[in-house]
Amino acid sequence: MPLVPPLPASLPTAVAPALPAVIGFADLAGIAVFALSGALVAARMRQTLVTMCFFAVITGVGGGSVRDLLIGAPVFWVHDRWVALVCLGMAVVCWITPHRWWRGAALEWADAVGLGAYAVLGTTKALAYGIPPVPAFIMGVITGCVGGVIRDCVAGRPSIIMRPELYVTAAALAAALCSAGQALHLPKGWVWAVSALAGFALRAAAIRWKLA
Amino acid sequence: MPLVPPLPASLPTAVAPALPAVIGFADLAGIAVFALSGALVAARMRQTLVTMCFFAVITGVGGGSVRDLLIGAPVFWVHDRWVALVCLGMAVVCWITPHRWWRGAALEWADAVGLGAYAVLGTTKALAYGIPPVPAFIMGVITGCVGGVIRDCVAGRPSIIMRPELYVTAAALAAALCSAGQALHLPKGWVWAVSALAGFALRAAAIRWKLA
Amino acid sequence: MPLVPPLPASLPTAVAPALPAVIGFADLAGIAVFALSGALVAARMRQTLVTMCFFAVITGVGGGSVRDLLIGAPVFWVHDRWVALVCLGMAVVCWITPHRWWRGAALEWADAVGLGAYAVLGTTKALAYGIPPVPAFIMGVITGCVGGVIRDCVAGRPSIIMRPELYVTAAALAAALCSAGQALHLPKGWVWAVSALAGFALRAAAIRWKLA
Repeated sequence: MPLVPPLPASLPTAVAPALPAVIGFADLAGIAVFALSGALVAARMRQTLVTMCFFAVITGVGGGSVRDLLIGAPVFWVHDRWVALVCLGMAVVCWITPHRWWRGAALEWADAVGLGAYAVLGTTKALAYGIPPVPAFIMGVITGCVGGVIRDCVAGRPSIIMRPELYVTAAALAAALCSAGQALHLPKGWVWAVSALAGFALRAAAIRWKLA
Repeated sequence: MPLVPPLPASLPTAVAPALPAVIGFADLAGIAVFALSGALVAARMRQTLVTMCFFAVITGVGGGSVRDLLIGAPVFWVHDRWVALVCLGMAVVCWITPHRWWRGAALEWADAVGLGAYAVLGTTKALAYGIPPVPAFIMGVITGCVGGVIRDCVAGRPSIIMRPELYVTAAALAAALCSAGQALHLPKGWVWAVSALAGFALRAAAIRWKLA
Repeated sequence: MPLVPPLPASLPTAVAPALPAVIGFADLAGIAVFALSGALVAARMRQTLVTMCFFAVITGVGGGSVRDLLIGAPVFWVHDRWVALVCLGMAVVCWITPHRWWRGAALEWADAVGLGAYAVLGTTKALAYGIPPVPAFIMGVITGCVGGVIRDCVAGRPSIIMRPELYVTAAALAAALCSAGQALHLPKGWVWAVSALAGFALRAAAIRWKLA
């Protein structure tokens, strides 16, 4: 099909080389945790494996997809062979494992790690695309929260951002520290670590002490 | 307004020439069926003609729009003079015809045809844009299901993918066969026919025998 | 990060110079009114300031973002330093002022002004990007209504377009007059003024006399 325009092959990976490899791994781990939370919502509503896969994908990649569309980046998972497979794999993991494995707080803690890491990653990617600090901060919040918002809208549940405990606030703290730190030209490694940790800590405190 | 950048005129039709004309017709027919299902949801809630038009448009073009945004294609209906008119026309058809015409299973069967055809079309378009097989399969499911998901979210109804009968599974079967068949370089005409027919057959069985 | 592709600097402002400055101001005012309506929904549900900010942003920029993605324009607020700040500022205004300020009809009237102006702006921007008249009309309706639709979906409320009084019809009137007037090459200033006024007048009548 020679009429199909060739894809700009350098774009999808344009940002990645500038970020350390650990962020690439954190990225995939964060996607997996979000995908699992989506599959679990479908499992609790006694849906089929295919519907669990659908929820795993929209929850796992929803926030990053909205971010990439808004900043004009190629959507990160579409030209990638692994991200979609990881989401489908998490749905299968959820399907074949006993439900009680996921009943406790383990998933909520993993989600807290993903939230902080994802907000930092989203802010950093937006800044790397030349977005000014305030919109970049919003991109960080979108990356962290919108997958869960889409999951809850489609499932017809009250949205995660309306629940009493702090959720969007933790993503906002991580994204704000990350955006401000990079605007002040502080060392990037420290900015990423401190802001992701702060977001995780606030979310962890909200889970532990029901902060509202 | 010379400051407005000229549109890349070759892009919107870049894929179309490579697909047989019958797919172009199936495409418009599928859009019409989905648009009608959107208009009917609004009609049953005793909404005005304008709100029926709004639902016809978001349901008819929703899935394909999300697919095109994700794969980086120009959104198929935006530069087209007919697709939007077909959606608005279906809302008018729904408005001027007696409701009992649409009460039976006729619409559901038409929707089943559209679902299979649309899942195949979405997968094929994604593959034509160089998307790997697994994300292309997901694009097929998105093309078939997301219009209905948006319709149900906006209407505040339980989402079609949460209902007991198989729906997303039929789209997934068609998209998976289509993606696998093209990855294995089987003859395209056969792959398209068999996968669309398989998706329709599964959905038809789900309607007929309430498969869950 | 030299690997990051340089942004096409001329695109985000490509349309703006062709539109009179008053539209740029109306734009920001319309965003502020929509953002305030989003923050108020969160405030009435006793959410935190951060959640109010989230709702202010998605409501203020939601419709225009969907329009820009569909027509292939750079999303208007992402490369702008002010729009996101205006949305966040409206959430703070909503947070620090007494709730009774916003209890009356003042906000609904302001929203009516924004609806008409926004529908006209959205249609005009789509036409400036070479979109045919019917899809451009739909872009006007999307620009006026979709921010409120997203706000209501995320908040789990009945969508504004399902309420008894005319809402989407007012946006459709403004967008249809604007698209038709420009297709007929009538003087642009008059087309913009008359169509925005007509949309506002219909919405005002719907508020005043509960038109359905």
